[in-house]
Amino acid sequence: MSIDTSSDYARERDAEDPLGRFRDRFVIPDPTLIYLDGNSLGRLPKATAARLKEVVEQEWGQDLIRGWNQGWFDLPERVGTKLARIVGARADEVIMADATSVNLYKLAMAAVRARPNRTKIVSDTLNFPSDIYILQGVAAQTGTELQLVQANDERRGPVEGLAAVIDDDTALVSLTHTAFKSGYTYDMAAVTEMAHAAGALILWDCSHSVGAMPIALNNCHVDLAVGCSYKYLNGGPGAPAFLYVRRVLQEPLGNPIPGWMGQKNPFEFNLHYEPTAGLRRFLSGTPPVLGLAAVEPGLDLLLEAGLDAVRLKSVGLSDYLIRLWAAELAPLGYRLRSPRQAARRGSHVSLGHQEGWRINEALIQELNVLPDFRRPD
Amino acid sequence: MSIDTSSDYARERDAEDPLGRFRDRFVIPDPTLIYLDGNSLGRLPKATAARLKEVVEQEWGQDLIRGWNQGWFDLPERVGTKLARIVGARADEVIMADATSVNLYKLAMAAVRARPNRTKIVSDTLNFPSDIYILQGVAAQTGTELQLVQANDERRGPVEGLAAVIDDDTALVSLTHTAFKSGYTYDMAAVTEMAHAAGALILWDCSHSVGAMPIALNNCHVDLAVGCSYKYLNGGPGAPAFLYVRRVLQEPLGNPIPGWMGQKNPFEFNLHYEPTAGLRRFLSGTPPVLGLAAVEPGLDLLLEAGLDAVRLKSVGLSDYLIRLWAAELAPLGYRLRSPRQAARRGSHVSLGHQEGWRINEALIQELNVLPDFRRPD
Repeated sequence: MSIDTSSDYARERDAEDPLGRFRDRFVIPDPTLIYLDGNSLGRLPKATAARLKEVVEQEWGQDLIRGWNQGWFDLPERVGTKLARIVGARADEVIMADATSVNLYKLAMAAVRARPNRTKIVSDTLNFPSDIYILQGVAAQTGTELQLVQANDERRGPVEGLAAVIDDDTALVSLTHTAFKSGYTYDMAAVTEMAHAAGALILWDCSHSVGAMPIALNNCHVDLAVGCSYKYLNGGPGAPAFLYVRRVLQEPLGNPIPGWMGQKNPFEFNLHYEPTAGLRRFLSGTPPVLGLAAVEPGLDLLLEAGLDAVRLKSVGLSDYLIRLWAAELAPLGYRLRSPRQAARRGSHVSLGHQEGWRINEALIQELNVLPDFRRPD
Repeated sequence: MSIDTSSDYARERDAEDPLGRFRDRFVIPDPTLIYLDGNSLGRLPKATAARLKEVVEQEWGQDLIRGWNQGWFDLPERVGTKLARIVGARADEVIMADATSVNLYKLAMAAVRARPNRTKIVSDTLNFPSDIYILQGVAAQTGTELQLVQANDERRGPVEGLAAVIDDDTALVSLTHTAFKSGYTYDMAAVTEMAHAAGALILWDCSHSVGAMPIALNNCHVDLAVGCSYKYLNGGPGAPAFLYVRRVLQEPLGNPIPGWMGQKNPFEFNLHYEPTAGLRRFLSGTPPVLGLAAVEPGLDLLLEAGLDAVRLKSVGLSDYLIRLWAAELAPLGYRLRSPRQAARRGSHVSLGHQEGWRINEALIQELNVLPDFRRPD
């Protein structure tokens, strides 16, 4: 691969970048910092800082309890509806609630309980560890077995291994769409079809995909999905997560944490739980208003930019980085830990080196670059 | 009861109020508004608005991912440690996590699973409905029965009824300490002892007590407790909740939603869940940084004022309101829906009237008073 490694080349590409104008929409106090950690915590949109000030000082400080009738109560749906457009779902199929791990628990419990004669949950070792812990908990509490398919190469999902174990004992297949270390991205449609062919439900964790690439939950016939909003959605540290339930499954599946926000007419304070219609039944406690309000402006930015344009730029940047690696770093013992094929890769590129930890520290201390380090290298 | 019903009397009491100086510490844009809804959503402390601006603009906007190593990671414990002093617990017995309903689910599931040979959960009809829904869910998922003791008078907990059903089949007794409608407050020590005498665990929801009165979780030998921070703690709309687990129970009880934030060394990303030491094991997903940061200044204010002083003022105000009711409102058909005895009452007073809804609306529309309405009257 021949490549122009000059910084002039990079500057020219920046100058002609149709998304370049969005840089001004973010708070960037140190323009010399090279921030390579949007896969972990996205930057602060300027509109978010302004929106939070409004929510705190006007809505909480001034409107007080009246805020609940002036928009807070509907925030989980309002924000969810915008997120639905980002993940290829219908407006009434996505809602904001709790943390990703809690949502995964809710949907995995609901799915396993909806397949009472099946004894297995299937996942793989590329899954985010928190997801695996949650599934271990669900398995223990439902008397099922968690079968974890080994990925021998982190740059490639163990699709054949999954095909070999997904069977008519499988209640649920739960995977992370884009792997957190290598950035490997599953063919969502193909694996979903594999689960469905065995009569299993599928639950995708889209945390490392959402906002970085178009996702087509409906077109892939996905049953259940969860994801966080603090990475590529720029929702802020520990921002509330989302959950997706395909429309036809919303009535049959129950919320295992049936709180008052999912109750029909919660302010009648009836003593028996009766779920409300639609996705709101998957809410449990009172919605986190400050966190939810902080998510919305980032979604507006993404919808304005367009997911296709974001993906195009992401692939362009990633391919450029991989070509730079091939030209300059491969000869120095750096390994490419991500798939080369853009279609099988999310929006981050992993490089390994036996001195990886020290290189990471030097980038931070000496070069004002913020990368993300993962063991071993 | 003779009483001075003049507003001069009230103004004199205000003038000599040792806590009066704290009024300036809150954002109060409309000084003519009489806000009687701190039991539902506490006011905004000025320090909170400033702190949130700092968290958003400096910590998120500027420090970016480095914020996790500069205090965010420890926020659940740091805020929990302050809250521990407010509920009479040791510093390592309280942690901030999720919503109250989710925490109640976690602790109730853990408790029932820790008493596998017992078949019952006991609660009562004074409990907050969301708690009852959660317990219904826990009962369904653990194959136990929820026994709900009827309170015939909302101003008095059905203590005898509870005594009659709490037995050696009872895994868990779960009650709300202060009832959300009448403000009735249980004798926490006595009911806890009743549960323990039968070998059951007890779980108190302190949402309507915390911050309004001293709570003595340790001295009452309480096993488990949860509560919200958006009422008397002034943590903001939908603020994160807390959970308390008595030190000796932290190791034996497991978290049914075992996420990575409760994992030993979460950043080693091991594939098998191994809980970390202490209360952090009851965390699940990534902590909600904005929400947690908003809780802390309200706790600082309370600790500065002192819970005993707050309680003294609360009882004084409530008794004054009840005397005004007796002098002026009882003759007009208003009923006192709260206990008269201060020791059995939280920090709100409920009045009923057959035209209650219209009176409530008139207070809001005509008199710039914000009360809290609950059915029926």
